[in-house]
Amino acid sequence: MASLIRSGFRSTTLASAATRTLARPSRLGAVATRGARAYAAVPPVEPAGPSGEPKKKFRVGKFLWRLTYSSAALGLGLLAYEIYDGRHPVEQAPADPTKKTLVVLGSGWGSVSFLKKVDTENYNVIVVSPRNFFLFTPLLPSCTTGTIEHRSIMEPLRHILRHKKAEVKFYEAECTEIDHEKRTITVRDNGDVKGTVAETSIPFDYLVIGVGAQNTTFGIPGVADNACFLKEIADAQKIRTKIMDCIETATFKDQSEEERKRLLHMVVVGGGPTGIEFAGELQDFFEEDLRKWVPEISGDFKVSLVEALPNVLPMFSKQLIEYTENSFKDQKIDIHTKTMVKKVTDKVISAEVTQPDGTKAMIDMPYGLLVWATGNMPRDVIKDLLQKIPAQKGSRRGLLVNDYLVVEGTEGIWALGDCAATKYAPTAQVATQEGQYLARLFNTMAKTQALEDEVVKLEQLALETAEVAEKKAITNEIENKAKLLRRSKRLMPFEYTHQGSLAYIGSDRAIADLAFGEGTYSSGGSLTYLFWRSAYVSMVFSTRNKLLVMTDWLKVKLFGRDVSRE
Amino acid sequence: MASLIRSGFRSTTLASAATRTLARPSRLGAVATRGARAYAAVPPVEPAGPSGEPKKKFRVGKFLWRLTYSSAALGLGLLAYEIYDGRHPVEQAPADPTKKTLVVLGSGWGSVSFLKKVDTENYNVIVVSPRNFFLFTPLLPSCTTGTIEHRSIMEPLRHILRHKKAEVKFYEAECTEIDHEKRTITVRDNGDVKGTVAETSIPFDYLVIGVGAQNTTFGIPGVADNACFLKEIADAQKIRTKIMDCIETATFKDQSEEERKRLLHMVVVGGGPTGIEFAGELQDFFEEDLRKWVPEISGDFKVSLVEALPNVLPMFSKQLIEYTENSFKDQKIDIHTKTMVKKVTDKVISAEVTQPDGTKAMIDMPYGLLVWATGNMPRDVIKDLLQKIPAQKGSRRGLLVNDYLVVEGTEGIWALGDCAATKYAPTAQVATQEGQYLARLFNTMAKTQALEDEVVKLEQLALETAEVAEKKAITNEIENKAKLLRRSKRLMPFEYTHQGSLAYIGSDRAIADLAFGEGTYSSGGSLTYLFWRSAYVSMVFSTRNKLLVMTDWLKVKLFGRDVSRE
Repeated sequence: MASLIRSGFRSTTLASAATRTLARPSRLGAVATRGARAYAAVPPVEPAGPSGEPKKKFRVGKFLWRLTYSSAALGLGLLAYEIYDGRHPVEQAPADPTKKTLVVLGSGWGSVSFLKKVDTENYNVIVVSPRNFFLFTPLLPSCTTGTIEHRSIMEPLRHILRHKKAEVKFYEAECTEIDHEKRTITVRDNGDVKGTVAETSIPFDYLVIGVGAQNTTFGIPGVADNACFLKEIADAQKIRTKIMDCIETATFKDQSEEERKRLLHMVVVGGGPTGIEFAGELQDFFEEDLRKWVPEISGDFKVSLVEALPNVLPMFSKQLIEYTENSFKDQKIDIHTKTMVKKVTDKVISAEVTQPDGTKAMIDMPYGLLVWATGNMPRDVIKDLLQKIPAQKGSRRGLLVNDYLVVEGTEGIWALGDCAATKYAPTAQVATQEGQYLARLFNTMAKTQALEDEVVKLEQLALETAEVAEKKAITNEIENKAKLLRRSKRLMPFEYTHQGSLAYIGSDRAIADLAFGEGTYSSGGSLTYLFWRSAYVSMVFSTRNKLLVMTDWLKVKLFGRDVSRE
Repeated sequence: MASLIRSGFRSTTLASAATRTLARPSRLGAVATRGARAYAAVPPVEPAGPSGEPKKKFRVGKFLWRLTYSSAALGLGLLAYEIYDGRHPVEQAPADPTKKTLVVLGSGWGSVSFLKKVDTENYNVIVVSPRNFFLFTPLLPSCTTGTIEHRSIMEPLRHILRHKKAEVKFYEAECTEIDHEKRTITVRDNGDVKGTVAETSIPFDYLVIGVGAQNTTFGIPGVADNACFLKEIADAQKIRTKIMDCIETATFKDQSEEERKRLLHMVVVGGGPTGIEFAGELQDFFEEDLRKWVPEISGDFKVSLVEALPNVLPMFSKQLIEYTENSFKDQKIDIHTKTMVKKVTDKVISAEVTQPDGTKAMIDMPYGLLVWATGNMPRDVIKDLLQKIPAQKGSRRGLLVNDYLVVEGTEGIWALGDCAATKYAPTAQVATQEGQYLARLFNTMAKTQALEDEVVKLEQLALETAEVAEKKAITNEIENKAKLLRRSKRLMPFEYTHQGSLAYIGSDRAIADLAFGEGTYSSGGSLTYLFWRSAYVSMVFSTRNKLLVMTDWLKVKLFGRDVSRE
């Protein structure tokens, strides 16, 4: 079943919006491995004989058993501590008006990895996001079929913020305008419940922009009205409901054969990891659950994937692209490459296909569900800011930033993640590293400031001191501090380290391109799927979410997926 | 903590719409108890001494250990079998045009308990419901705060239908008209996805109506537009989102003190079990989770319960009502009895209070969330049918039925659950017993029909037979069959057996009025809460749902509730 493909060369990694990050090692995984290793190392216990030899063996065995027990107990203890710690927020230092105000926009990969690392004692931190949780986007395709329940990949932002040393304010709001000159932002409550104050402004000293991007339909008529997207939790839930709605409507009494086939045709546009994973998950849902509970649809259910480029998954190595295409063929998922959607109505997708001989032809695809998993464009607030800053003129992908992620043409404003236009692909992996880099930068800035303040104080002291020996001691100390200051001011520019790309392709198989030194290790199959799972579990931030995700996988293993429509 | 109240008298049980059923004994519970009992019965193992006594003890101990192990293994085996069985539907006999068509409307307590018991081999069964799952309504209040995840109390209808011996057709549709004379129903697909056929008719020989009831606002202005209801899964999710929305809006920058207090005032109208349980769950959510993660709201969050009658929970005994009211006082939940809502705007509830001196006064309550947990009225399809049948004239509560649940003025049409107007309260407990009764009735009807057919055949045979001895044997058999026939035709009318009422009242306390012979056993407190939990788990239909609900409880115990808004 498992087919492993190796490649020594460095594969092209035009990583797209959905490429996955492999940043954090698994703490939980490490505990599990340790326990297993100790357990496996236990030799069979032999009874103590009259000779000394077996007795010694027995002692070794006993020692190993004890080691096993203690490490298992230690592992459990650690887990219990982490659960306890996760539930018990700390006493926090209140906001301090003498400190500078740092406003962070967004609650995605970039902003959250920044918030996790930044020392909030140095600033008055305010977070503004229309979503009061962090979303583990790589598992979003799994939510569309119920392999993972959506709350398992949502981590409440307050769980993170309430564990910081100093108080962090959070406003659930959308930032609608950034005034880089007046140094204020305008925020609006975009929820259904509105108070008398639903729009206000927040002044800032420093601003970190991590608002992400929005879906684009490339202006293709009918897409916005008829397609489902796959970016937020609500999108995944809408798709989940719509899949079952299509099935129930297809099995409605007196439905014609043709209409039934249309309703059961599920089309995904976009051959990046998100599109591929969604197609794989959907086919799994059909094979493992729907076929069993709604046998009447077995003959007509069909998943198709449409991609404008000549092949899917451009960020993966050639072998893996081929492997994925063959795997999809086995699973009976149709891949239409070189097919560009031109128009969508409520029942039909019209697309232009480039045929092998180079000529172009139009085809019509009747469909029940259309998932649009391609295309990003800047959010309105970013578009507006681009207009206002002369140095940003002509930038269409997002905010241009310098090597230190400072927004060009501004001071004290940084951008990270999908809203920044860097030379890197707009992936979670890049955003995470940018967030961590910026946090280090802010922590260093605070340290530098503190050192500068101390030097000024010491210089003052030196002036006031008359005694020579004392004066010399102070001058020495100033010298030391200045050295530290020079070192901490020597900031390194942001540099991205690509760690690899991962994607699930259905039927318990995954593909992985991992960067090792100068080369790439590529693999695909069931073992890679186990790796995919453990990599994702290790990346899900909290112990709580790790356990929730694992419980969901176990639930599906035991009971299958839920076919209720709601 | 636990306070137990006993009462020997038979309490008034004007059980309301939300009174809980205690019908099925816990299979899982039984296994657990058995395991625990065996385990507890193990005496401490003493080393075998030189005398025979301890040795015998040792053997008894060994035996008991073995018993423990084997029963635990048996329990696990049973559980594994049930999980396996639940996931593997059977080969089903296809529809048979010679059989009569039985149409069942609805997928609530009545219809589902009917479907579980009825032998589908005797009829061509068609089920029509706008909801393709059964909903365990007693735990719906727990879903509003995330104590239980909504999918844990949803059981896909197909899991039930695909385990029946003969095929059962299911259409996800709303029945919009019942023509009792032409014997057809009209059904309409009410989902978002519509096929070319979205409305059609289904002819029936027998019809079982279990469509339930709809919420009523008693015509009070503003309720329909501003209140949340608590009947379906979508209602619970809407409330869950709105609670967090109110909190986020209350903590929005520059929100005034007054507006903040308004947004954090959560009002429940209706002092039945649903309202009480919701209020209790909401206060738990605040005390155990919100207070910790959103400390800024601690001073202002408030839950109030409004009831028009002089006291809450009229179906419970006096002691329990008092106990509940005191417990609510401890939890700082305000109870406003004798308070009748007169008008609701988007921000204020106006109500008329009958004061202790009998005079009436109007009060205004600013609120953030309003949950309307009172009042049922017939659905439109039932109202329409009531108009069409002369014998139903004047009935406003629902379809009048005779002692055998046949709809008055019709033939071959039965009604059960909240859409039937019986002398019993519209509770899940009543609906379940009605469903079971009707299933027995249908199974008997089929048996009777088969016997009648056989008698006719035998009579024919007797006529054709010349030999006397053979003729006598046939006559004897006819006599036997006729006796069976007479017995099976002697149908008993439906009789309801009240088994008790249960409600959760917050702070890990519950109350229970259980019927025992002529009297009632009343209890309230933490032990009753454990009973409440085990009773509910035992009632959740499938092993899958039982385990899901228990996992949810464990999840909340370990990690608390989720404060994400989505």
